[in-house]
Amino acid sequence: MKKCYFDHVATNPLHPEVLDAMMPYFREEFGNPLSVYEYGVTAKNAIEEARGKVAGLINSKPSEIIFTSSGAEANNFALRGIAIARQNDGKHLIVSRVEHHSVLNSARFLEKSGFTVTYIPVDKKGFVDPDTVRKAITKETILISVTHASSEVGTIEPLKDIVKVARERNITVHSDAVATTGNIPVDVKDLGVDLLSMAAHQFYGPKGAGGIYIRQGLRIAPLIYGGIQESGRRAGTENVPAIVGMGKAAEMAGAEMQSRIEYLRPLRDRIIYVMSGIKNVYLTGGDKENRLPGHASFCVEFIEGEAMLLLLASKGIFSASGSACSSKALKASPVLLSMGIPSGLAQGSIVFSLGTGNTPEDIDYLLNEFQLVIKRLREISPYAQGWGDKEGGA
Amino acid sequence: MKKCYFDHVATNPLHPEVLDAMMPYFREEFGNPLSVYEYGVTAKNAIEEARGKVAGLINSKPSEIIFTSSGAEANNFALRGIAIARQNDGKHLIVSRVEHHSVLNSARFLEKSGFTVTYIPVDKKGFVDPDTVRKAITKETILISVTHASSEVGTIEPLKDIVKVARERNITVHSDAVATTGNIPVDVKDLGVDLLSMAAHQFYGPKGAGGIYIRQGLRIAPLIYGGIQESGRRAGTENVPAIVGMGKAAEMAGAEMQSRIEYLRPLRDRIIYVMSGIKNVYLTGGDKENRLPGHASFCVEFIEGEAMLLLLASKGIFSASGSACSSKALKASPVLLSMGIPSGLAQGSIVFSLGTGNTPEDIDYLLNEFQLVIKRLREISPYAQGWGDKEGGA
Repeated sequence: MKKCYFDHVATNPLHPEVLDAMMPYFREEFGNPLSVYEYGVTAKNAIEEARGKVAGLINSKPSEIIFTSSGAEANNFALRGIAIARQNDGKHLIVSRVEHHSVLNSARFLEKSGFTVTYIPVDKKGFVDPDTVRKAITKETILISVTHASSEVGTIEPLKDIVKVARERNITVHSDAVATTGNIPVDVKDLGVDLLSMAAHQFYGPKGAGGIYIRQGLRIAPLIYGGIQESGRRAGTENVPAIVGMGKAAEMAGAEMQSRIEYLRPLRDRIIYVMSGIKNVYLTGGDKENRLPGHASFCVEFIEGEAMLLLLASKGIFSASGSACSSKALKASPVLLSMGIPSGLAQGSIVFSLGTGNTPEDIDYLLNEFQLVIKRLREISPYAQGWGDKEGGA
Repeated sequence: MKKCYFDHVATNPLHPEVLDAMMPYFREEFGNPLSVYEYGVTAKNAIEEARGKVAGLINSKPSEIIFTSSGAEANNFALRGIAIARQNDGKHLIVSRVEHHSVLNSARFLEKSGFTVTYIPVDKKGFVDPDTVRKAITKETILISVTHASSEVGTIEPLKDIVKVARERNITVHSDAVATTGNIPVDVKDLGVDLLSMAAHQFYGPKGAGGIYIRQGLRIAPLIYGGIQESGRRAGTENVPAIVGMGKAAEMAGAEMQSRIEYLRPLRDRIIYVMSGIKNVYLTGGDKENRLPGHASFCVEFIEGEAMLLLLASKGIFSASGSACSSKALKASPVLLSMGIPSGLAQGSIVFSLGTGNTPEDIDYLLNEFQLVIKRLREISPYAQGWGDKEGGA
């Protein structure tokens, strides 16, 4: 059976050249980067070379990059590390309602620890309004955390404008850029953020490697205490092969970014064009310009996202119904609800996220099968009166 | 030049069979374990199989194992997670003075957060006395954290007796078993601990994979908040290949443990026998029975550990002067000082930790070169009067 992977926001396949770059560090170069002899020096040099490549991808200094094990760890580190470091300046945080669980649940943890959090609403396309952020600021506000782009609806947020608002006060800005780093241009100096989270497996790098940009001079408490790794900011023996892979993936993403974007956008736009033409199928999220280049998300009326997923999967088409981190929860997505999408419609969420391995033929196959799946599910849906002619029921 | 790696407490080479087991998850099986379609199911099953193997190694239930990115993360999770979960029961912790930095610095972080910590001394061989622990207990004590074995001096602590002391009260016990898991028998039911940390790269598994045993029913706050991975206890996309590798390494360690121990002990004992016979060279740490099977550590009078390391390294002999996590700090080891070793002597610390790849010929080479290195360094040491005949100086 044909297999079409359209769930690149869940994870990417590892690029074979990235794996090749990692292999020596699984074999002869197994040293601990803190060791003073040659095995250690080689490992240490490999990490620093990777740090330079990741820094190059986002236009930071190498010393502003700290490696973590995941984007989730980076997000926890940012929120809780700044909360601790700045608690004497105030105890109020602002986060958007379209944040990843690792941001939202870090914020909830801080609420239990004496902080207050304002959860900023978004408009119907998922955009955060910088003016809404401005109005939420209090004298106590120390941190604003807004995602660079939502992996659920593909909306790229007006981060630069949000940073401007924060700069009027002395407020630290963090952005979860896990969905964007390596996929669209991310320039921390241009964006002006203080902290930015990323994950290698979102740009054809390995799982187990994430990173956080920490602007030079910014004070932050560690999340993982221990040894002197990562300038004392993140303890634990470095995952050398994964870090090397993240560096290689960053280098490739930088070099190939424009061609990747130019390849993905037309494929995405074709999906959006055809699917938006189907009755009762609604595009969710941002417009084409402010949308992840390989991201097409929809709500389908009268149909459960989970049922679509499984039927599509039976045809070798692999997609998602929301964030992978909650895809087994079978609840309407908080992100979609925050955009004002009614709960019933939000249940019919489906997300196609494309990668460089997808071909135009894959898209043809998807579009054809998707229409058949919708037709079939609507035929058996008790809610689809007025759309199909059949009565529902078991 | 001959290369002899004697620093297995810093990190182990990855076993080639472990790497083979990991490879499919770097290639075709790249799915996110939370995805509902086949790539996800395969990845999820691989993780659960690995969990079963790790559980088998330490005699726990699979559901009692949570994967982390490192032993340091596991230690942070244990101390801070229990501190948060039990803060209403009390705010006092007990840790030993021979703990890893990730335990000690987590404890110091908790001290800044309103907890008090008693740091338990050890005897001259590095043993924690259960009676000393008993005397340190207050009505406020919620957690005792004592390492299963020190990677610096190889001493295996009387953990079972310490657990008995804790059981007299309702005190949670954590043990950092990073140095022991996979290397000597670790049976969490027999030990009676509530939490136990481990790291795959300490038993020929990959870097980037650690784990923590959490006794069924024990309440603990997460360290990394976010999605529903690891039963909601540890967020972040799972590092599937590394977890699979940890499972394979655990399976192999269980099957080969006795033969590995029987191979390593005589090599270790030969090092201890010969080196202890050299004038002004002193064995540090526990006796043979209560010592890691491949671990031989010494203090050499009148000589800097760092100088020994570098000269040995120039002969292709790779060893450590203390914990890898602080080996660049060039200070006398707190572990050695806590054992009552004078600061000057503690500077001459050197640790040889053996692995299954070391041959008897490697040991011959080490013993021969070590004596030459000591002789050479003493000839140039200004402190070695009475040992050599030459005057020191530059």
